[in-house]
Amino acid sequence: MRNCLSRFGTIALLSVWISAALAQTDPLPSWNDGAAKQAIVAFVTDVTREGSPDFVPAPDRVATFDNDGTLWIEQPIYVQFAFALDRVKELAPQHPEWKDKQPFKAVLEGDMATLAAAGEHGAVEIVAATHAGMTPEQFIGMVKTWIASAKHPRFDRHYEDLVYQPMLEVLAYMRASGFKTFIVSGGGIEFMRAFAQKSYGIPPDQVVGSSIVTKFETRDGKPTLFRLPQVNFVDDGPGKPVGINQHIGLRPIAAFGNSDGDLQMLQWTTGSGGRRLGVLVHHTDAEREYAYDRNSKVGRLDKALDAAATDRWTVVDMKRDWKTIFPVRP
Amino acid sequence: MRNCLSRFGTIALLSVWISAALAQTDPLPSWNDGAAKQAIVAFVTDVTREGSPDFVPAPDRVATFDNDGTLWIEQPIYVQFAFALDRVKELAPQHPEWKDKQPFKAVLEGDMATLAAAGEHGAVEIVAATHAGMTPEQFIGMVKTWIASAKHPRFDRHYEDLVYQPMLEVLAYMRASGFKTFIVSGGGIEFMRAFAQKSYGIPPDQVVGSSIVTKFETRDGKPTLFRLPQVNFVDDGPGKPVGINQHIGLRPIAAFGNSDGDLQMLQWTTGSGGRRLGVLVHHTDAEREYAYDRNSKVGRLDKALDAAATDRWTVVDMKRDWKTIFPVRP
Repeated sequence: MRNCLSRFGTIALLSVWISAALAQTDPLPSWNDGAAKQAIVAFVTDVTREGSPDFVPAPDRVATFDNDGTLWIEQPIYVQFAFALDRVKELAPQHPEWKDKQPFKAVLEGDMATLAAAGEHGAVEIVAATHAGMTPEQFIGMVKTWIASAKHPRFDRHYEDLVYQPMLEVLAYMRASGFKTFIVSGGGIEFMRAFAQKSYGIPPDQVVGSSIVTKFETRDGKPTLFRLPQVNFVDDGPGKPVGINQHIGLRPIAAFGNSDGDLQMLQWTTGSGGRRLGVLVHHTDAEREYAYDRNSKVGRLDKALDAAATDRWTVVDMKRDWKTIFPVRP
Repeated sequence: MRNCLSRFGTIALLSVWISAALAQTDPLPSWNDGAAKQAIVAFVTDVTREGSPDFVPAPDRVATFDNDGTLWIEQPIYVQFAFALDRVKELAPQHPEWKDKQPFKAVLEGDMATLAAAGEHGAVEIVAATHAGMTPEQFIGMVKTWIASAKHPRFDRHYEDLVYQPMLEVLAYMRASGFKTFIVSGGGIEFMRAFAQKSYGIPPDQVVGSSIVTKFETRDGKPTLFRLPQVNFVDDGPGKPVGINQHIGLRPIAAFGNSDGDLQMLQWTTGSGGRRLGVLVHHTDAEREYAYDRNSKVGRLDKALDAAATDRWTVVDMKRDWKTIFPVRP
C-alpha cells in the first residue's frame, strides 16, 4: 500500500506540474507582446477566474466576431463578391442577354469601374442572379466547390488559407476559457456556413449573417426550402445588435470587428456595464496584407476608430501586434 | 507493485461493471414500454452506434422540439396568452380607455367569447400592447416575474411545473447521445428564452420562435435595443423549416411536435432520406391532462395526424405511453 500511495503521490504531483506548465503556455503565440495582447489576456483572465470581481459564469460568456477583415482577408473585394462575380461568368452561357445588360456586362468584361458605378442596386441584382433560385443545400454545395478552387489574386492562395492566424488563436483561447464564439457578419449567413466549421471551428448555428428570403414549399412531392431573390435581413451596422439578439438571445461580453459596420455591435457589447472587451483590427500592414482605414471602400474604419478612443476599445495594430498574418500550411 | 496492479485491475473491472449497469439503465423511465418508446430508443441507438448503417456524426445530430403541447401544457389557452391577459390587467390603470375599447374591454371583463370573436386581429393588438415598448432584457424580466407567480387555473401549479416529465427525459437522453436540442415553436422567442434554460436545459441561442421587430437606437447616450409593436417572423407551420434553416443551418434528423403547426417541420425533417425520426404527442388523457385533436382551437391536430400514418411518424398516445405526465416536485 505504501508503494501504491507513493505512486499516487507522484502522479498527483506530476499533474500539478503539468497544469502549471499548461497555464504558462502562451495561448496567443502569433501575437507580439503589447497592449492589444495584454488587453485580451487580462480580460479573459478576469472574467473566468472564480472569485474575481469581474467573474462571468460560463453560460454568459458570449463572444462575437465579425468575419470579413476580422477573421479573414477582405481586400481587394469581399470574398463573397469574388464568388458572385465568378458565378456570373459561370452562368453567362445560360444568359446571352447579359452581354448587353448591366451590371452583368461589366462583370463579363472585367470593367470594375462601371461595376462600382452600378452601386448597391447593381450589387443586389448580382446577388439575386447568383445567390437565389436553389435550395440552401445546393447553394452551400456551390460555395464549397468554389472555395476549394478559387484563389486570391495577389497571394495566389485559397481563401481558406487567408484567415488570420492570430485570430484563430483568439477563437481557440476563448473557447478553451468557456466562451461560446459566434460569427456576426454583414456577409451571407449561408455563404459563411459553407466554411465556418472547417475554417474557424464554428458550427452553423453559431453563424449570424445577412440573408435572403427562403420559402418552404412542396416540389414534386418533396418538402423543400427555396432561396428567393429578395433581401430578408441585413446584418450590418445597427443590424448587428438586432441579429445578435435574434439569434443568440444574450448580450455579448466581448466583440471583435474591424470596420464601421461593427460600430453598433461594439457599442452594444461594451455599453452594458461590467468588464467588457471591444476589439478593432486595424489593417496597417501593406506589405504582409493591406493598409486601409478611413477612406477605404471595402471595410472603411472611420467612426469606429474615433469611438475606440472614447469607449476604450482595444485597437490591434496589425503590423506591430501580429507576428504572422496567415497560417503556415504544410 | 503486484498489489498495485491487482488494485488497478479491480478498479478496471469495476468500471466495466458500472458502464454495463449504466447502459442498462432505462433512459426513459416515465415511458411505458410500447411502440413509441421503442421507436425513440431504436432511432437514437441506430444513429449513434459507430459502424451502424444509419450512423450520423455528432455535429449533424440536430433534434427540434415544439414547445406548447409538446414540452409543456397548452390548454385551456397558450401559456403566453395567459401572460398577455394578465399583463393587460396589470397595465389597465395606465390605459383608462381600455374599459371601452375591444379587445381590451373583453379581457378586463373576462369575456372570453368576445375575445375569441376578436380573432387574430384582436390577438395582434393584445401582443402589441403587452409585448412591445421595452428592451428585450426588460421583457424577459417581466416574463420571469410572471412565471414565478402565475398558476394554471385547473392544476393550481406554476407553469414550470406543468412541463412533461417524459419529454424532459427525451431531451436529456438525446443530449447524452450527442444531440444538440433546439426548441422550434410558434411561441415568442424571447418569451421562451425566459425559462428554456431552467425548464429544459436549452440555452437562449438554441431557442427558435416567433418574434416582433427589434430596433437598435441610442437612448440617453446608451446603446439600446427596443421592441416594436410589429410582427417580424411567424415561426409556425411552413415558417418552422424556414426558422430552422435561418437559426440552425442544418436539417434536423429528429423532430417532435403535437399539432398541425408542426406538420411542415416534421415533413422537412423526415423527408430528407436516411434514418429520421418524426414524433407527434397525441393528447389522449382527459383525466391526467387534456384530450384533444382534430377539433381543438388550441393545438389542433388534424392534417399532421393523417400525415403521421403516411410518413411513418411515431404517434405518442399520452394516456397509454406516459407513466407520469408532470414532474413530481418536492
